[in-house]
Amino acid sequence: MNASLITQFALVCGALGVIYALVTAAWVSKQSAGSEKMQQISDAIKEGAVAFLNREYKTVAVVAVILAALLVYLGKWTAIGFLVGTVGSAVAGYIGMMVSVKANVRTTEAAKKGIQSALNVAFKGGSVTGIMVVGLGLLGITGYYLVAKSMAPVDDAFHALVGLGFGCSLMSVFARIAGGIYTKAADVGADLVGKVEAGIPEDDPRNAAVIADNVGDNVGDCAGMAADLYETYTVTLVAAMLLAKTVFGADSPWIEFPLLIGGISIVASIIGTYFVRLGKNQYIMGALYKGLAVSGILAAVAFYFASDWFLKLPGVQPAFSSMGVFTTAVIGLVLTGLIVMITEYFTSKSFGPVKHIAAASVTGHGTNVIAGLAVSMKSTGLPALVICGAIIWAYQLGGGFSGNPAAGLFAIALSAVAMLSMTGIVVAIDSYGPITDNAGGIAEMAELPESVRAITDPLDAVGNTTKAVTKGYAIGSAGLAALVLFAEYSRSFPTQIFFDLSNPKIIVGLFIGGLLPYYFGSLLMEAVGKAAGGVVEEVRRQFRELPGIMEGTTKPEYGKCVDIVTKSAIKQMMLPALIPVAAPLVVGLLVGKEALGGVLIGSIVTGLFQAIAMTSGGGAWDNAKKFIEDGMYGGKGSDAHKAAVTGDTVGDPYKDTAGPAINPMIKVVNIVALLIVPLLK
Amino acid sequence: MNASLITQFALVCGALGVIYALVTAAWVSKQSAGSEKMQQISDAIKEGAVAFLNREYKTVAVVAVILAALLVYLGKWTAIGFLVGTVGSAVAGYIGMMVSVKANVRTTEAAKKGIQSALNVAFKGGSVTGIMVVGLGLLGITGYYLVAKSMAPVDDAFHALVGLGFGCSLMSVFARIAGGIYTKAADVGADLVGKVEAGIPEDDPRNAAVIADNVGDNVGDCAGMAADLYETYTVTLVAAMLLAKTVFGADSPWIEFPLLIGGISIVASIIGTYFVRLGKNQYIMGALYKGLAVSGILAAVAFYFASDWFLKLPGVQPAFSSMGVFTTAVIGLVLTGLIVMITEYFTSKSFGPVKHIAAASVTGHGTNVIAGLAVSMKSTGLPALVICGAIIWAYQLGGGFSGNPAAGLFAIALSAVAMLSMTGIVVAIDSYGPITDNAGGIAEMAELPESVRAITDPLDAVGNTTKAVTKGYAIGSAGLAALVLFAEYSRSFPTQIFFDLSNPKIIVGLFIGGLLPYYFGSLLMEAVGKAAGGVVEEVRRQFRELPGIMEGTTKPEYGKCVDIVTKSAIKQMMLPALIPVAAPLVVGLLVGKEALGGVLIGSIVTGLFQAIAMTSGGGAWDNAKKFIEDGMYGGKGSDAHKAAVTGDTVGDPYKDTAGPAINPMIKVVNIVALLIVPLLK
Repeated sequence: MNASLITQFALVCGALGVIYALVTAAWVSKQSAGSEKMQQISDAIKEGAVAFLNREYKTVAVVAVILAALLVYLGKWTAIGFLVGTVGSAVAGYIGMMVSVKANVRTTEAAKKGIQSALNVAFKGGSVTGIMVVGLGLLGITGYYLVAKSMAPVDDAFHALVGLGFGCSLMSVFARIAGGIYTKAADVGADLVGKVEAGIPEDDPRNAAVIADNVGDNVGDCAGMAADLYETYTVTLVAAMLLAKTVFGADSPWIEFPLLIGGISIVASIIGTYFVRLGKNQYIMGALYKGLAVSGILAAVAFYFASDWFLKLPGVQPAFSSMGVFTTAVIGLVLTGLIVMITEYFTSKSFGPVKHIAAASVTGHGTNVIAGLAVSMKSTGLPALVICGAIIWAYQLGGGFSGNPAAGLFAIALSAVAMLSMTGIVVAIDSYGPITDNAGGIAEMAELPESVRAITDPLDAVGNTTKAVTKGYAIGSAGLAALVLFAEYSRSFPTQIFFDLSNPKIIVGLFIGGLLPYYFGSLLMEAVGKAAGGVVEEVRRQFRELPGIMEGTTKPEYGKCVDIVTKSAIKQMMLPALIPVAAPLVVGLLVGKEALGGVLIGSIVTGLFQAIAMTSGGGAWDNAKKFIEDGMYGGKGSDAHKAAVTGDTVGDPYKDTAGPAINPMIKVVNIVALLIVPLLK
Repeated sequence: MNASLITQFALVCGALGVIYALVTAAWVSKQSAGSEKMQQISDAIKEGAVAFLNREYKTVAVVAVILAALLVYLGKWTAIGFLVGTVGSAVAGYIGMMVSVKANVRTTEAAKKGIQSALNVAFKGGSVTGIMVVGLGLLGITGYYLVAKSMAPVDDAFHALVGLGFGCSLMSVFARIAGGIYTKAADVGADLVGKVEAGIPEDDPRNAAVIADNVGDNVGDCAGMAADLYETYTVTLVAAMLLAKTVFGADSPWIEFPLLIGGISIVASIIGTYFVRLGKNQYIMGALYKGLAVSGILAAVAFYFASDWFLKLPGVQPAFSSMGVFTTAVIGLVLTGLIVMITEYFTSKSFGPVKHIAAASVTGHGTNVIAGLAVSMKSTGLPALVICGAIIWAYQLGGGFSGNPAAGLFAIALSAVAMLSMTGIVVAIDSYGPITDNAGGIAEMAELPESVRAITDPLDAVGNTTKAVTKGYAIGSAGLAALVLFAEYSRSFPTQIFFDLSNPKIIVGLFIGGLLPYYFGSLLMEAVGKAAGGVVEEVRRQFRELPGIMEGTTKPEYGKCVDIVTKSAIKQMMLPALIPVAAPLVVGLLVGKEALGGVLIGSIVTGLFQAIAMTSGGGAWDNAKKFIEDGMYGGKGSDAHKAAVTGDTVGDPYKDTAGPAINPMIKVVNIVALLIVPLLK
């Protein structure tokens, strides 16, 4: 029963995470929410966000019930797992959003006291989401694994984990799509009609779309992102556990080893959050990095002792040396660090790429976009290469090149698990971004003194970079997770299949898979355009029919805009969300299991490049605009600034809708394939 | 000696093509070149184009000599083949450009007589290039094959063909890159400083960059495109011949069968050119399609009888039935037709996608670009699916699914050859575009009456669509050709290799290969931006220092701009051109032959999507602008038009620099791999 020590440890760590999150959430709630006007605004945002999420969840619930009924065909434990996964992801998203709509106004209020207090409230709010995601994730997977294993036949119990993963994936693809469309349609719509047409500043209360814009930050960047990383976290653990079963057998302690890594990192992440505080130099990014670094180093040290302890357990196949196991985990941590640094290089105002786009803005809109697209494509290079390096290194450590390919693949899975185990602290850092963004918006709408914005603005600017950085982390880890899923898929058949590139079916599969991110991305870009058009029309109508708005004597009908975006986003989420579910089914059943293997890898290859290009490119465009607003090339209002605003608008759906949604999409494709293996045998 | 009947036939058809091209070129030369002023302008364009091509060729010659010296290490016949290929591609590009700089002013002159005469001169000019490309191509490959076979050991003789293909590929990647940078840097630079800053119309003689802009049409769209399709044509034939040898043995008549298809299609294409004439309805696109349809149908009928005759030859392995062979060829023709239709749908003013972009221009620059990017991504779907269909269908006809994978792959190769055999007529239709574009420019600069532009403008608008259509054809066929090269690569090793997707080395290869088109594309986009910046500065300087220019009393120094773009394009072509040469070498020698296989397919997968997205997206943006100029959404000068001009500017390097250059790039990657097989064994 030594192995179950691990599951007990995982359950305790998961519970610890949930408790930490609840206690921190209570602390946030107790902070002052400021004046009545501020609270009114905050309530309006909250109301819109809750209304949207309720409608989204209702729609997804219908789909989930239908799918669960179909899944019973593949086994009742799989169907139950699917529901557990869906609910878990939905809860993580909901809590993340609820705390951030509370933290936003409290951050505004804290900003009156200074930057340290504001950072404190905002980051505490973010860490609720972050630690909740991993705590709930680890609890869900460990708990359901124990239940299923004790009650179901062994094969069913493991297939049940696939169902769990599929539930998370499906929920997160819906959340990413709907949240992404919502947030950018509101943002782009509000900007077009407010900043461009009416010439009023961002977050001006006279703009009827301003509440919708702030709701968007919460439902897209908080709820969507939380669901996404909850999914990546769970699916990676599931994939590694399944692979361990395939490689080492159903009784091997290796199956539970990923849970050990997960548990350790939750504790490390919680400790890390206490190190996020400003130094004397007031370097905000540095404060956040401190938390990340402490978590990573603590986790690495603990991994070392844990590996050593684990390898001495009875029944553990000595697949690697203790140093080897430790190193695979460290690869995941190093990869996290490198991807964070690379993404910061391509999206921060301090480096060449963003400055290049800013300089290109001087010659107009066209050259700004050309430069941005060039940066966008170029930003895919280094992340792809370091991921390749990590794959080769881990595979070699696992003995993949010395005759043990299965253990090599498992080593890659362990690196992915170690990378994903940092989810808690990474999400904490990320979620702080939309909270400060909202805090600034509330300050503007409540007409607070300039000094408050002078605190929230720099926090928000750093939030832009952390958002881009997390997206780089999310897509990089999603790529690895999807590869582990594929490794499991390729080994799931009774007779070995060769997915040989010389087989035209594989090539056709690669093309079809490669096509998915492109088609999916185009649908999302169009959806944003369409929904934003609706916002523009509505705000124009209000300006026309209620002339008091511009004079500040009539309050705009904020709710109308919230309603329009909500309906449009929900309506347009269906088709794109069903593509990754339907494509593997169709190809698998009509063209066969080999072609489906091609589809899986094809979607990962183009998906990785498209997602990185979109998220980094969008972040670079955004900060190029901010760089000009800092006074370069004529500053705000100059022609260069106008061109930079165009680039920012283009980058919006790139980085916040299409790009991040590719991440859960490729995992849905891969997990659906794993799910239907019994039909393809 | 029956088989050599085929080579004799191929030589005769090749020679026929060259003779037809020379006779037609002589006819074009004899047409009136108009007034002295028109000839002066035309001479200036010609001078700039020749100067550029000379400088480009000199630079490439240095690289080619070094590479040839290195290639001697792989066999002297390979090195000679390389030089033959380079020279052939260079000659095709040179002739294509020379005839188009003659045809342009003669088209302007003919336009005075009416649309039929103008179309006649322009299309005749285009067909010189088109038929010369295939004539010279078939002569080169058949001739060198016969020489090498009779003088070298058999393995060396076939490897010599790889050298020939590499020569063509290298020349064409240089031509596409340098020509592409040149044409768009001049175009974007001239537009930015002329249309946007100075507010003077396109092709206005007061713009110092106007000659460079017209030179660009010739060196990019004529010389670059001719070199590109010369290469695709040659490489496809080479790949099919090599595969025939690997599959059927070195003595099989199947090796020469692709030459038979090539020969037939040259004759069919020549006949087809005579059917290009306007009907009563003056539908220009219809006139061009008539030529294409006649060529295709004639070729299909001839393929039927030729297959029947061929299969009865002694020594022919009965790999397929006569109907089967015929059908594989027809697949290639059908694929050509479908890709032409799909590309027209996404890029023509008559259909939804272009109208969608135009409508999105009303809300500004940002929404125009978002809509364009969405269309760009979406346009990859159908071409990818029809290519997949063609692959599966041909493979099945060849018996690939019934235990004969080798013959199945060869069937795919035959479809690719049939598709590429239409190159003559397709290039003819394409080359007519830049000729009419130049003709319009000359009319504007020579200040001819409006009635002349009223003839050249509609011809030019159709030219935009034909250019996009040819690019779709070029990349689709390049994708197929590259797959055939990969098929040959995968079978070139003494022991069978499995390029299994479960092997992490293959995955790493796919990522590195997938990265190449992105990185390559970003370098080209940046190069255009940089070179265009140089043009803008120079034109501004001339406006400033020579105030007589704006008043029309001083002639601008056109040569300065030509010189700046030439130098910049040559300087910036080096790095991108060496990427596809170096990448397979590095991966093959350092990571191994399996990973290199992954690189090949990875570059094809993302290359196909990126190239289609860029060329179709760019064409759609261009025609969305033209759609608005036709009077929609406020027409010229409206805000929607300004937004559409931004989209057009973004689309320029997309569709004319980065997109089309990916096409030769993926073939260089694949052919270099084939070339270094002896080093990897």
